[in-house]
Amino acid sequence: MSGFVYLDFIGVALFAASGALAASRKQMDIVGFIFLAVVTGVGGGTVRDLILDVPVFWVEMQTYLLVTAGAGVAVYFTAPLLESRYAWLLWLDAVALAAYAVFGAAKGFAITGSPMVAVAMGMLTGCFGGILRDVIAGEPTVLMRREIYVSATALGAVVMVAAALIGLPDPVAAVLGFAAAFGVRAGALAYG
Amino acid sequence: MSGFVYLDFIGVALFAASGALAASRKQMDIVGFIFLAVVTGVGGGTVRDLILDVPVFWVEMQTYLLVTAGAGVAVYFTAPLLESRYAWLLWLDAVALAAYAVFGAAKGFAITGSPMVAVAMGMLTGCFGGILRDVIAGEPTVLMRREIYVSATALGAVVMVAAALIGLPDPVAAVLGFAAAFGVRAGALAYG
Amino acid sequence: MSGFVYLDFIGVALFAASGALAASRKQMDIVGFIFLAVVTGVGGGTVRDLILDVPVFWVEMQTYLLVTAGAGVAVYFTAPLLESRYAWLLWLDAVALAAYAVFGAAKGFAITGSPMVAVAMGMLTGCFGGILRDVIAGEPTVLMRREIYVSATALGAVVMVAAALIGLPDPVAAVLGFAAAFGVRAGALAYG
Repeated sequence: MSGFVYLDFIGVALFAASGALAASRKQMDIVGFIFLAVVTGVGGGTVRDLILDVPVFWVEMQTYLLVTAGAGVAVYFTAPLLESRYAWLLWLDAVALAAYAVFGAAKGFAITGSPMVAVAMGMLTGCFGGILRDVIAGEPTVLMRREIYVSATALGAVVMVAAALIGLPDPVAAVLGFAAAFGVRAGALAYG
Repeated sequence: MSGFVYLDFIGVALFAASGALAASRKQMDIVGFIFLAVVTGVGGGTVRDLILDVPVFWVEMQTYLLVTAGAGVAVYFTAPLLESRYAWLLWLDAVALAAYAVFGAAKGFAITGSPMVAVAMGMLTGCFGGILRDVIAGEPTVLMRREIYVSATALGAVVMVAAALIGLPDPVAAVLGFAAAFGVRAGALAYG
Repeated sequence: MSGFVYLDFIGVALFAASGALAASRKQMDIVGFIFLAVVTGVGGGTVRDLILDVPVFWVEMQTYLLVTAGAGVAVYFTAPLLESRYAWLLWLDAVALAAYAVFGAAKGFAITGSPMVAVAMGMLTGCFGGILRDVIAGEPTVLMRREIYVSATALGAVVMVAAALIGLPDPVAAVLGFAAAFGVRAGALAYG
């Protein structure tokens, strides 16, 4: 699974940034930014690890708390410079969900050996952080927008698992899964 | 607990169908139907198993993923034929919550031996899937509707535990609990 | 951690009462009061215990179910006498979040030994019950109100952990953390 670890950091950090942007849209204070960044960044992976019955990743490795809190602080100072915070939120969310879906599927596959559980884990992991962010911030959840969202997550997880099943090396499976998920979601955002 | 296993499949499948109907009301694509079906179908039981510290049921037995995903696909093709999708959603939800509450209480009782924890598990299990469905779909949660909802779940769990405590056989306890919960909820839906 | 145990009961009982007040505002029946009281009272601590991978506190010690259900019943009979149920909800919530944040941080610190994880646990524990309550009741989450909420929780957790790190006795650390969190939140409620 080591080939996927960069995807994990990307997914966690960018989900955190999208959470901080939601805090910005709600005019919260800096601790609110950090809180929503951390919850959005680590939420999906926390549920994944609880279900897989493995130690929760950010309790094991506290770098994740630093990365997500740091993303919250960084967005606090840069958000006022952005022209459209919601467009940024959606694009950060798009990269993050692609990364997170692939990493979640990889972790689920490594631990259970079941392709079906792996895909479910990828979808859950990819979608759950965004759901938490939107529910806490009181926005309609991003899943309810018309652009393809859950499907992109599902596709990324399926491509990753299929690539692993036919024996492609980890980094290749990671790149293919990521490209599939992000490509579909980006297309939907750009032309949807 | 084997006497309750059919209740579990009924509860999971019908909650899944109600989740897919929520996806239909939101005009999601087929993957959205499957996602909301799976989350609604397995959500309550997942929380139950995490709290009871037993392996999550659908990671152990993947049939549940097939059943819930299948319910999502089936609803995708039949929902356009329904006259009132929300009425169907409420009735499917009513059968599902009765089944789920009784099975949740039975599992909680079997594992902890505590009637109070068993009733809490039944209520949690019966209500949580519907809460997840409504929150993700951005609808007011079904608990907030005036018809008796939480009370029906509680009654089903209490009847099941009481029947087990006085030594009735499992299938009898299951039928009594189910009939109590569904009877009350159905009465409320029909005349409420 | 024994020095903190009273804080835990205070936090759990008052969060439960705030949940019951939310049920009252929604004109639910008495079982609805009990359900929302129990979920709000034990919600944050349940997530804390799952993440820390320790037995969920109310499965171990059922007094908590009795306390929270009792709070629900008590509010059912007294809520009609209150002039402003939402003001009461906010003040109960303020005491509860201070108590819960400090106890959550203490438990996180005792189990993981990491100050950072301890603070995250305190914040999560303090905020999560209120989030659950508001989401189920269909209200905007209390975090989104302008008065300092997450910051008060964070401050209480930080003060408790800092006091423990410099070797102050448990009860002193508990009182300092509680006073910091409640003081800030109360000031915000009174003058915000």
